[in-house]
Amino acid sequence: MGRRDGQAIDPDWGPVALKPSGPDLMSLSRHGGRLAAAMGQFPAAPTPWMDLSTGVNPRPYPAPSAPRAARARLPDPAETSALEDVAAAAFGVGSAGRTVAVPGSEAALRSLARLLPAKTVAIAGPTYGSHAAAWREAGAQVQSMPCRDLASADADVVVAVNPNNPDGYRHAPEALALIADRQAARAGWLIVDEAFVETAPDLSVAAQAGVGAGARLIVLRSFGKFYGLAGVRLGFVVAEPGVVAALRSVFGDWPVSAEAIAAGRAAYTDAAWRARTQASLARKAAQLDRLLVRAGFEIVGGASLFRLCAADDAPRRFTRLAEQGVLTRPFDVDPRWLRFGLPANRASWARLEQALEACP
Amino acid sequence: MGRRDGQAIDPDWGPVALKPSGPDLMSLSRHGGRLAAAMGQFPAAPTPWMDLSTGVNPRPYPAPSAPRAARARLPDPAETSALEDVAAAAFGVGSAGRTVAVPGSEAALRSLARLLPAKTVAIAGPTYGSHAAAWREAGAQVQSMPCRDLASADADVVVAVNPNNPDGYRHAPEALALIADRQAARAGWLIVDEAFVETAPDLSVAAQAGVGAGARLIVLRSFGKFYGLAGVRLGFVVAEPGVVAALRSVFGDWPVSAEAIAAGRAAYTDAAWRARTQASLARKAAQLDRLLVRAGFEIVGGASLFRLCAADDAPRRFTRLAEQGVLTRPFDVDPRWLRFGLPANRASWARLEQALEACP
Repeated sequence: MGRRDGQAIDPDWGPVALKPSGPDLMSLSRHGGRLAAAMGQFPAAPTPWMDLSTGVNPRPYPAPSAPRAARARLPDPAETSALEDVAAAAFGVGSAGRTVAVPGSEAALRSLARLLPAKTVAIAGPTYGSHAAAWREAGAQVQSMPCRDLASADADVVVAVNPNNPDGYRHAPEALALIADRQAARAGWLIVDEAFVETAPDLSVAAQAGVGAGARLIVLRSFGKFYGLAGVRLGFVVAEPGVVAALRSVFGDWPVSAEAIAAGRAAYTDAAWRARTQASLARKAAQLDRLLVRAGFEIVGGASLFRLCAADDAPRRFTRLAEQGVLTRPFDVDPRWLRFGLPANRASWARLEQALEACP
Repeated sequence: MGRRDGQAIDPDWGPVALKPSGPDLMSLSRHGGRLAAAMGQFPAAPTPWMDLSTGVNPRPYPAPSAPRAARARLPDPAETSALEDVAAAAFGVGSAGRTVAVPGSEAALRSLARLLPAKTVAIAGPTYGSHAAAWREAGAQVQSMPCRDLASADADVVVAVNPNNPDGYRHAPEALALIADRQAARAGWLIVDEAFVETAPDLSVAAQAGVGAGARLIVLRSFGKFYGLAGVRLGFVVAEPGVVAALRSVFGDWPVSAEAIAAGRAAYTDAAWRARTQASLARKAAQLDRLLVRAGFEIVGGASLFRLCAADDAPRRFTRLAEQGVLTRPFDVDPRWLRFGLPANRASWARLEQALEACP
């Protein structure tokens, strides 16, 4: 079915649509995770491919599967509420009623663009492209601005990803609080996408979302990235009750699957796994940086689930890596950039090292 | 989290909000599947409860679970497309590009109410309440009309559930084609919710949706009911390319989970299971009718996944059944009605028979 080649989607990264670095990169610079497209474009590459094109934890949380009986019936709303309760607690969100489960934060950010009235939207970027695409499709005038200038944003809705993807820029919670306050004064909104915030938990402003001075602050959370279960499709929105009610109305009474409920309830109550994983991801990110520097890349930044690096010949390196069955993430907005996710295990680390050596 | 008790949702069944038959029925007459609420209201009932309050097949398709690797990563858009292809083929939808996967038909029908411009909506009813609720929330003026009068509907959007839930009314495909044609002439839409159409496949108009005279016909399909996997959250919309593109934009590039992809791809290509199940459900529905008639109910109708029956003392019978741990589905719109799903196995049939005998 045609449109999934990216034709119908607005250019993703950055304020203007730059030409891709080559025809190969066309469909692979929209989002990560397009392994089938990559395999089509590099049919001679050794299989299985190693997909480093996303920022998903390659060592998933050992979540239980949903019981057979739970897969068979509609999720009881009480189970969905229980999931929201443990997620809220894990996010540091005190009171119930401000956290709503959604089938992936992608679907939530797209819905927000339709629900919130906005003529103008300022997005700190370059960043995850769906935000701009969603607001443009909703008819808003979208302005991309450098992350460091976000305090000067003047728009009905301000969007920040924190830590930012792909460059890892860290918006200070205090700065975001000031922006949220200012947005409230103009009856606007501040949306903070905390998709990767488990790797930098001090940055989270979820506790303030939807109450007091944060009344007009909306926080998005993603389950699949840090917990390594992106196929489960689970995310959350923390916001004031009106926004929560509107999202409940969009997704209905059974917004997430039995699998999502089973995995989320287990994962969000496992503080020990969370702490252990935060530490081990940080170690692996440092290890990946060393590998990339040794291969001649310059480290631009990133979170501990992905590293953004740069080289003048990045398009050529992307192609050489792909020819070896290693999928990385190129960017239209800067052809010098490549983003690498973390290898899963010792063999994957060795394969990446070898592949990097083969394209000096 | 408070709102799931039904407070924030419009009254569901029928054109006006009738008072529920008693305080017990308040939260149980919105949708089926509220076992936790029922258990709270009947704490002395024997456990485990037998939930007959939904129309979900109690003998699920033996679907494979998603491979661990597929749960861990984002679904590749090529996999989602492959799911849409086999679903379209099973629906008799010839050309690709008109079938879009969604995380449950509930989320889809709610999205359609926000996407399609409509001042007036006519809904053949009484029927599944989310349609009316969704359109009212979207600001449309909603009129409920008897199923048999649908041909005289005069509204921007006309909605029919076929076969209808809960009474099993069968809209003739030819009649629907005429309405679709008329809706096209006024640039309106006809939405046909085929949630239970696998039990009456001759009724389906999916093949016509979105092409030719059916350009303004939109068909909703549900995976979880016939295949008995409602917890997986999977549905489809068949429509013309503009509506398909809009829905893709709402749900994003990963609209359904790895579980949904794995289960759907297997189930929709298993024509033998489908045929066998259609036959066995019809036998069981006849068996259930005999049981209900013997217990003094009058059969109103239904599809083979649920039977609607009536008795003057239905509220009392609902309560007596609940006290025995058997959850059925009462209706605000007609307190004489009770809807029964199919028992799962020999023991469940015996338990239902016993429970019915205990409340003559």
